[in-house]
Amino acid sequence: MEIRTLEDLFIDELRDIYDAEHRILEGIEKMEEAALNEELKEAFRTHHEETQGQIDRLEQVFEICEKSPEGEECQAIRGHIEEADELIDNIEDAEVCDAALIAAAQKIEHYEIAAYGTLCTLGKMLGKDECADLLKETLEEEKNTDKRLSALALDKINERAAA
Amino acid sequence: MEIRTLEDLFIDELRDIYDAEHRILEGIEKMEEAALNEELKEAFRTHHEETQGQIDRLEQVFEICEKSPEGEECQAIRGHIEEADELIDNIEDAEVCDAALIAAAQKIEHYEIAAYGTLCTLGKMLGKDECADLLKETLEEEKNTDKRLSALALDKINERAAA
Repeated sequence: MEIRTLEDLFIDELRDIYDAEHRILEGIEKMEEAALNEELKEAFRTHHEETQGQIDRLEQVFEICEKSPEGEECQAIRGHIEEADELIDNIEDAEVCDAALIAAAQKIEHYEIAAYGTLCTLGKMLGKDECADLLKETLEEEKNTDKRLSALALDKINERAAA
Repeated sequence: MEIRTLEDLFIDELRDIYDAEHRILEGIEKMEEAALNEELKEAFRTHHEETQGQIDRLEQVFEICEKSPEGEECQAIRGHIEEADELIDNIEDAEVCDAALIAAAQKIEHYEIAAYGTLCTLGKMLGKDECADLLKETLEEEKNTDKRLSALALDKINERAAA
């Protein structure tokens, strides 16, 4: 897609994250299965449900903008998901695998935080307040998921220190 | 590299970000040249200098761990830099190009925030406090760069609203 205006950039970024969310939906399912720690499994399960809601929100935004959601492929998230798949297949030790899953998931979360942050800003610049509000809801969910994953990683440090 | 232990995971992540930082060093130079807004140019210039310091810190960490820094290619950052290059080449309008550069740079920053966050956590889990402290310094720099880019994007909203 040719980007001539800020509106074009907004739509291009929307399509990128729309593709990303679908890939994440599949990717998280595998991460949930692979996780050993119950809390980590639960965090992935919750995020899987949230992701479905985030896709619905994106579809609302496309409708408001009268644009179709298809058209872009998110290379970055494709790479992240492939990397996570490789980790799952190749790491035998459960503790190491859980740590690697948290690392991979946080890279994905941070991609989403950056993407939705940009989308909120562009939405506001373009006076699309309703869109910006919907995108902000998702941004907050992504930040919370990231915090939850950080807390799980910190718990592991404390467990190790106590062991 | 085969990942059997948390130490292996730590070294693998270190090598990934070491490769990433070298790519970012080159990428930011082009972004600095392409930026029209003087403050944005200056933000890229500062981050370019910081990145050199971050590479030095990583080399210190490798030395402490008695490992070589080479070995991994960071696919994710390669993708981000290629994407930024495409934006620079294809967007003619300066305002749109600056907004796209901020968006691309924040995706890169967030990758680094996730990566250094993980490295700090793993460093602490492994009792490598000196390494964790060095990595924490970089993590703070990355977060500050991200905030600076967000502030520049918000300034643009206000400029537009006032126009």
